[in-house]
Formats: sequence, C-alpha cells, structure tokens
Amino acid sequence: MSFHDKFDDLKLLKPVIFTGKEVLLLDQTKLPETEKYLKLKNCGEVAKAIKTMKVRGGGAIMLAAVYGLALSAINSKGNLKILKKDAEILKNTRPTAAALFQAIDFILRIAEKSSNVAEDVQQAANWLFKKTVEMEIKVGENGSKLFEDGDTVLTHCNAGALAAAGYGGVTLSVFRKCREKGKKIKVFVTETRPYLQGARLTLWELKKFGFDAVLITDNAVGYCMQKGMIDKVLVGADRIAANGDVANKVGTYLIALAAKKHKIPFYVSGTIDPKTKTGDEIKIEIRSPEEVLIFNGKRIAPKNIKVFYPAFDITPHEYVTAIITKDGVFKPPYNFGG
Amino acid sequence: MSFHDKFDDLKLLKPVIFTGKEVLLLDQTKLPETEKYLKLKNCGEVAKAIKTMKVRGGGAIMLAAVYGLALSAINSKGNLKILKKDAEILKNTRPTAAALFQAIDFILRIAEKSSNVAEDVQQAANWLFKKTVEMEIKVGENGSKLFEDGDTVLTHCNAGALAAAGYGGVTLSVFRKCREKGKKIKVFVTETRPYLQGARLTLWELKKFGFDAVLITDNAVGYCMQKGMIDKVLVGADRIAANGDVANKVGTYLIALAAKKHKIPFYVSGTIDPKTKTGDEIKIEIRSPEEVLIFNGKRIAPKNIKVFYPAFDITPHEYVTAIITKDGVFKPPYNFGG
Repeated sequence: MSFHDKFDDLKLLKPVIFTGKEVLLLDQTKLPETEKYLKLKNCGEVAKAIKTMKVRGGGAIMLAAVYGLALSAINSKGNLKILKKDAEILKNTRPTAAALFQAIDFILRIAEKSSNVAEDVQQAANWLFKKTVEMEIKVGENGSKLFEDGDTVLTHCNAGALAAAGYGGVTLSVFRKCREKGKKIKVFVTETRPYLQGARLTLWELKKFGFDAVLITDNAVGYCMQKGMIDKVLVGADRIAANGDVANKVGTYLIALAAKKHKIPFYVSGTIDPKTKTGDEIKIEIRSPEEVLIFNGKRIAPKNIKVFYPAFDITPHEYVTAIITKDGVFKPPYNFGG
Repeated sequence: MSFHDKFDDLKLLKPVIFTGKEVLLLDQTKLPETEKYLKLKNCGEVAKAIKTMKVRGGGAIMLAAVYGLALSAINSKGNLKILKKDAEILKNTRPTAAALFQAIDFILRIAEKSSNVAEDVQQAANWLFKKTVEMEIKVGENGSKLFEDGDTVLTHCNAGALAAAGYGGVTLSVFRKCREKGKKIKVFVTETRPYLQGARLTLWELKKFGFDAVLITDNAVGYCMQKGMIDKVLVGADRIAANGDVANKVGTYLIALAAKKHKIPFYVSGTIDPKTKTGDEIKIEIRSPEEVLIFNGKRIAPKNIKVFYPAFDITPHEYVTAIITKDGVFKPPYNFGG
C-alpha cells in the first residue's frame, strides 16, 4: 500500500500524486476537456510545470514543489547542495506564494539535520500532504456548521480540491461535510474572468463530487441576489490579514458589496496570516494584458489598446460575516494578530 | 449628394447605411477584427441580419428595420400588403425591442396615408435617422455638463455609436461633446461578459474617435474604484422607468453598488419610458446557456452543466445620481410619469 492509497476512502481528486519515482500533476490548463496527468521525472520539470500554471492554488503548488524536492533528493542520492539549488529554482516559480516558501524552508531544515536526506525529504513531503488533507477536512467540518439543508451558496474562483490535496480545499470540503451531515447544498459558481477558474475548475469538481451546480457570469451576481436566489456566499482567500481583511481573486469585493446590500452572509475560508496586519499591506499582483485579451487563442479586443488587469482585490473585514479556518469559525471583531 | 452624405462632418461610424437600393450593415459580430458591411438587397435579408445579431443596440436595430421597410416599399413598388407583411417579419426579430416596434408602426401609419408609398417610406426612414443623430448630439450636449476636464469615466457594455446612428450613441456622444468643449476624458471599459460588447465594440469606437481608453475585466470594477482610479460612471440603458429605475446590461447593478460605496457619481443616459412605472415591471430576458458556454467556438465548462444567464439587471433609482436624456439632465427625485 503506497502512501497516497491511504486516502482512497476520501475520494481525493488528486491534483498532485507522488509515485516515489515521478510527480504526477493533473494538467489544470487542459481541464475540463481533458483529464491528463503530466509525468515529471525531476525537480526542474516540476518547477517548469508550476511556472506555466499546469498546477495552481496555494496548497497544490506547495505540494508539487515539496514532491519536486523529494525527486531532487532521490535523484541526487541526498546531495544537500543540489537540493538547495533546486529549492531556489522552485521558489522562483511564483514569487508571491507564501505557503510555497514556508514549505520549502521546512523541507530544507529537515534535510540539513538528516542522516538520510532522500528518505527524510520524502517523509516530510508526505507529512505535508497529510497535513493538507487534514486541514481540508477540518475546515470542512468547521464550515459546515454555518450552512443549512437546502442552502444555495455562491462561490467565486476555485478554492476547492484542485487548489489543495484534493479532498475539497477550503470551499468544496465544506459542501462535502454538509452532505455527510445530511444537509443538501446547491452551488452557484461565477465563471471568474479572465482565467475562468469557476467555469473550468470549480464546476468540474462539483460535477465529480455530484453536487447540484449552476454557472453564472460574474456580471450576474447582482441579479441573482436581487431575485433571492442566493442564501450564502463562501469564498476562499489567497491571504487573510490579522484584522480579517481578505485578499482573494479579483471580483470578490464586488460580491461582498452585493452580499452586504442584500443581507446575505459572506463567509471566507482559509488560513490566517498573522504577520499581515491589514489588507493595505497586501500587494496586489497586476498580471499581463494578454491573459485578458487572448481567449482560446483569439483576441477579444482591438489591437494596441491598454488593459489593466489586477488579479486580486481586497475585501475589507467589515464585509466578512465569519472566517472559517482549520481551528474554528471566527466572527467579528477579528483579531488574529500574533 | 445623398442623404447620408449630409452627416459627413459628424464623422459617423455608420452602423447602418441606406444607398437607395441596399441596406449596408456593419457586421458587429466581426468586430473588432474586421470592418465588413453586409449588403442586404431586401427586407427579408435585413430581418435575418437583425435576428442573428449582425446589428445590435436599440437605435441601430430600429434604423436597420425602417430601412428594411424602405427596401420593401421600393421593391414592391409601394404595395401596402407586402409592406405590412414585412413589418410583421421585422417585429418578430427581437420581440422585446420597444423602439423597433414604435418605429415600424410609425412607418406603417405614414404608408397607409400616402399616395406615394415607396417615396414616403424612404423619407420617413431618413427622418428617423436624422432624429436619431439629433438625439445623440443632444444627449451628448446635455451629458457633457456633468463631466470635468481630466475625468476618468467607467462605462459598461456598448451604448455608443454602434448602438445608434453612429455619432456616439448616448455615452460616446457625451465624451465627444466634452472634447469639443476642451474637457479631456479618459475611459475605462468593462469587457462585459458574455458577449464582450465593451471589449469588442466600445473599445473599437473609442479608438476610432481617438480617446484614451483602458480595458478591464468586469471583476476589476471594485479594485479600480477602491484605488481611486474612477471619477464617474456613465452607462446607457435599455429602458428607464418613470421612477428612474434602470434596466441595462447585466452587471450594471454591481457597478452601481460599488459606485455608491465609493461615492462615485453614477450617471445613466438614454430615453425614458413613461409607461413603465418602476423596474419591477420590466421583464428580464433570460438568454441561451450557449452564449455563456461557447467562446470562440470552444466550450469553457464541463458538459451537461446548468447555466443561468440573465442578460440584463435592474439598478434601482436610488443608485442613479442623474439621468441624461435629449431633453436635459434630471436629478432625484425622478418622476417621468405621464
């Protein structure tokens, strides 16, 4: 029985698999049309796959990276110098991914103290995988208390199984736990322009797990709330500041404003970053115009025009009804500071 | 000098041209890549072009239809029976287009009293064209009073030249008039999913007229307002109720909510429908899932999923700072009832 087989009863969607010889990555750029795994034989291939968005979502990126280090340790027979060099390459794939940095440093600390680097790096990577699954389940358990049987929940972007170890991430795990408890949840999913994580990934997950789901355009959120079609909102977060401000995929703030207006609870699930005092400290990534302009290989706008594409926005804490973490459900006033 | 040549100094973008023998329609489905005119030789071809969205926007649809009737009158040598039959075909192209219905009935009333149907129908169609251009200029003149030199204005969807006779519709005419008065305006344009009227059409117009314009995703509106990048909002309207409630392209309501929160004036330009008392009376068109799902010929979501696509939403009058019409600028409380 391999390490990953231990989780079979959880029906993980498995964005990242480690075979002991290869890292298998579910190519998220090919979803939902094709479920294809990339077979990566060394750490350089893993780094390239992370950089080219084959895998995305904080948890899944982190797991791909630590298994990349495991390959490095195995292939180099535990050469610490090579491991450190590969760690630097991995860190440079996504300069803003906090969980990636922390996990890599954690692995390196273990390697430095180890007398059997190849074995210990693998074990540490597996431990992080297990911890991620446990986090998903705990968030799901805690979050499920906030939802009632029959609720229709709006979600934005993808903070589900594909963004973590595969149980359900910080949003879909909540819906899975609700179902375990006999609460039926219907999910409205925004398409989430420009990368369409909602349409392509979240809907694919929801279908895999057999949930009743409806796709809407980002523009339709206001209409659906006006018509009373949405009972609650649940989104993930790229970062949650100590005061409860939330950095998440751009568009989240508009949803929060509309939820407040229509007295719809707005829940955020994820991990607190106590080092970030408020949302003002979070630098928003401004991404390439091409990601907006080129759609399925075709331009959607005239040539030589300006595009401004912030990839995230900040939802101030006063719009957040509750924050769900693996440690519990927190309500205002938020004070997660060290 | 033909009728349309009279407007040459206005630099119309000419979505609809009547040559006396043909209706030329700028194919809006091919924009912005290709500026191609469809040459329509009879009323049936015009009706088909309207139905298949080759032309869109209340004013432009209306003008295409009345020139379609002119072709009908010319080709049938003024046969009233044929004209009425063609009028019915045109009315069935877009069952909810109020201006289309009114204009067709206006043409029919003239034809019924006419001793020279072919000639009078053409003249009536030309008169409607002239009235549309005049409306655009008046709205532009009235609206320009609300904007300052250096303002950055957010707009949504396309309520510009392509949606009217070609001067600038009810939004771009305002920017053109501002420029005539020495007020420089920068425009932020939402892409306006799913049909992308903003990215494809409004940006094309703004570029044609030489305005400084920036494309953003619909999701980025909140971020841009938070960062103080937007001074004012100007949108058109598919219908404005007597109490000031506004039906416009879906997503407008989210923009209005964000504008209110950030104390940004939210202006609407268009024509009042005094017969519609409030927004509650306006039936929102729910369109085909395919329009969301199929993008440049490719699906963006898994198969066999549900999609809910309301094409418009209602912005309640309390979010509307002022309404701009050809008759002036109106501020709350709105009371346009008969």
